[in-house]
Amino acid sequence: MITVVAKSVLKEDKVDEFKKLTEELIEETRKEKGCIDYALYEDIENECTFTFIEKWEDMDCLKAHFESAHFKKIGLQVGKLRKSREINIYKEA
Amino acid sequence: MITVVAKSVLKEDKVDEFKKLTEELIEETRKEKGCIDYALYEDIENECTFTFIEKWEDMDCLKAHFESAHFKKIGLQVGKLRKSREINIYKEA
Repeated sequence: MITVVAKSVLKEDKVDEFKKLTEELIEETRKEKGCIDYALYEDIENECTFTFIEKWEDMDCLKAHFESAHFKKIGLQVGKLRKSREINIYKEA
Repeated sequence: MITVVAKSVLKEDKVDEFKKLTEELIEETRKEKGCIDYALYEDIENECTFTFIEKWEDMDCLKAHFESAHFKKIGLQVGKLRKSREINIYKEA
């Protein structure tokens, strides 16, 4: 199993837009083959910091997600709302 | 529910020592009140990057964890093995 932690720090005043855009992303991604879990979290101390924590069956499923129409479309829109992004791909230690 | 993502970048050649030390930390932490999940992940691309992903019932349980004897003892030892650390505390968005 693959675990992804994808952290975004948003530009100020972009939080509502980000939440709205990611609703569709979450809904569509959860239907994908090999998606075990895909959830968005907000930092309790920094209102512009959000993280997706994702569980995928394997790397092939994750790669297919990166190539999906919804990821590409919404990813492009979300990219404009961010100050920074940090992605790590993990396996259980 | 509270989700913690605690990422460590270790000094080179400290990976084995880190894994050995965190075994006891994981075992003891999983026994704590309010600990729903506590697991260690290793980055598939960076062999010195590790992340704990933790689920706690609430902030009080997390605060009690930070005060626990095993966290304080092993945290001190692990601190010497790290180059950097980053902790975020999240709630579901």
